Amino acid sequence: MADDRNVQVRLKSRPAGAPGVEHFELVEGPLPEPGPGQVLCRTVYLSLDPYMRGRMRPGRSYAKPVKPGEVMCGGTVSQVIRSNAPDLTPGDFVLGYDGWQAFAASDASSLRRLDPDQAPIATALGVLGMPGMTAYVGMLDIGRPEEGETVLVSSAAGAVGSAAGQIAKLRGCRVVGTAGSDAKCAHVVNELGFDAAVNYKIDDLLSHLRRACPDGIDVYFDCVGGAVLDAALRMMNDHGRIPLIGLITQYNAESVPPGPNLMPVLVKRLTVQGMIVGDHADRRDDFLRDMTAWVRDGRVKYRLDIVEGLANAPRAFLGLFRGESIGKRLVRVSDDPTAAA
Amino acid sequence: MADDRNVQVRLKSRPAGAPGVEHFELVEGPLPEPGPGQVLCRTVYLSLDPYMRGRMRPGRSYAKPVKPGEVMCGGTVSQVIRSNAPDLTPGDFVLGYDGWQAFAASDASSLRRLDPDQAPIATALGVLGMPGMTAYVGMLDIGRPEEGETVLVSSAAGAVGSAAGQIAKLRGCRVVGTAGSDAKCAHVVNELGFDAAVNYKIDDLLSHLRRACPDGIDVYFDCVGGAVLDAALRMMNDHGRIPLIGLITQYNAESVPPGPNLMPVLVKRLTVQGMIVGDHADRRDDFLRDMTAWVRDGRVKYRLDIVEGLANAPRAFLGLFRGESIGKRLVRVSDDPTAAA
Repeated sequence: MADDRNVQVRLKSRPAGAPGVEHFELVEGPLPEPGPGQVLCRTVYLSLDPYMRGRMRPGRSYAKPVKPGEVMCGGTVSQVIRSNAPDLTPGDFVLGYDGWQAFAASDASSLRRLDPDQAPIATALGVLGMPGMTAYVGMLDIGRPEEGETVLVSSAAGAVGSAAGQIAKLRGCRVVGTAGSDAKCAHVVNELGFDAAVNYKIDDLLSHLRRACPDGIDVYFDCVGGAVLDAALRMMNDHGRIPLIGLITQYNAESVPPGPNLMPVLVKRLTVQGMIVGDHADRRDDFLRDMTAWVRDGRVKYRLDIVEGLANAPRAFLGLFRGESIGKRLVRVSDDPTAAA
Repeated sequence: MADDRNVQVRLKSRPAGAPGVEHFELVEGPLPEPGPGQVLCRTVYLSLDPYMRGRMRPGRSYAKPVKPGEVMCGGTVSQVIRSNAPDLTPGDFVLGYDGWQAFAASDASSLRRLDPDQAPIATALGVLGMPGMTAYVGMLDIGRPEEGETVLVSSAAGAVGSAAGQIAKLRGCRVVGTAGSDAKCAHVVNELGFDAAVNYKIDDLLSHLRRACPDGIDVYFDCVGGAVLDAALRMMNDHGRIPLIGLITQYNAESVPPGPNLMPVLVKRLTVQGMIVGDHADRRDDFLRDMTAWVRDGRVKYRLDIVEGLANAPRAFLGLFRGESIGKRLVRVSDDPTAAA
């Protein structure tokens, strides 16, 4: 990729149901010019996350949608090329929200400098970034697991679920994950240390979950909705908590599907609470302190699933909804100068 | 009714869907004999409440079901006739859980003595009893309304909803009720002091609710589920709270109906929390102190809907599900000696 031209992936048109590569377009253009207080950055890693599907919709969500013709939004780890800001110097690595493009001019105040000696820079988009903090706040503040309780985590091989389950293990819980393949289930148990994992595509999900959770479920960390939520509601113990982190099963639905019957919420006095990590900036320092230590000690493990090249971003993004990836999916937009050769 | 024979209403058989009078039977028998530490009581008032429908089911709920052949359960205000307990004397009025019968022998420890000079004894089953405490805890502890917020209350003319809405008014909120007839809506606004009321049987419920709640909804106190919950979820403001107190729209369902789509819970970071008043005994003193004062000052108003005679209890109970009553429905099982002639 030439260093004097920008490349962007823009939303071409809004999908009605499941998006396809035809809803994106790759556009080349001039390098952006940083204004006062801004820096010009080269994107190294772009984060791909299920929530981006929501930004492709026209309707109100918790953030404003991407309009057709605009660059797709997304978290990025970048290197500063030119700086009009006193705090950042060419060569610095920064966490930002520059979206699906090779270069961006951004306000320095919207960027956070990363120290490559502390942790691999890519982790700022995963276990030490938004997905990790979603797991941390969702599990500890909303789920509030107590020692000896049973915690069920959906999308357990994903960026958020994998961290959430390991945090519950650190709290002394029995932790069970659901995932969409036997390979993912093996990863969840053998590498991440969950007590059990259930492939949700199996027949008779409820029986399998009951066997994996003989004492019922106290916390269900829900990233998916759908059949796993239905089963979990039937198995919840009194006063259980359900942090609602995502509803990936319905992100591509063309019409609004019905939800679960709420009688278990009433009868078992459950708490179902929606959570968006952006509301919890006050917990960022706690999160970074704890999670950095846990990752360094090997008590929280993570996996990166790195796709090469911005042109592959649409296909890699669509693959998230087919459950293609294990761990945190990123796009390597340009070479990572910190990576070992 | 002879004073030497007991009369009971028993569950005859379990209804599959909507119950009918044929699922109950009236049985005469000998007076029960109070054992050591027990008292013989004559029932004055029997409470009729929607939750009793749940006790007619075989399945697990938060309390054990009534079996066919057993006396229907229920809260009662009674007068002590004979006492084998040091703390209670013939003539005393007590709050108990003696069920649908004219006489009962009960452990004195399960009864609470009532002072007829403090408040009419029937209120111990209504605004100063379980329904009032459900409103108090559900609104204040789960709903947590703040001054200036908008609070929607379903079953607003009912025993729980009427109190819940008035408590929210005392907290300085805009309070809107839903009810099933124009007469109930008029009662809710003109007598109870709600800011507005909407007949939920109207066409285009959502538009009417939007007009009544121009700033959206911060707390939805839900006694019903169904269409009002669906509409409320669409209108909730960010960080709204939904105390889930009842789901009367589905108590008679033969199969489990689907529930609401939960995307608004996620996107708007709502909290949906089931609540059963029995969990909150620690709040009883606060409740009695506050509610007794509010009722005495006229800041919380209530209405009793008294049906005469135990034989009419089944029909009166079934009428709850047709929305027959305004206020707290009771059965006068025997004369109330404290009532003005």
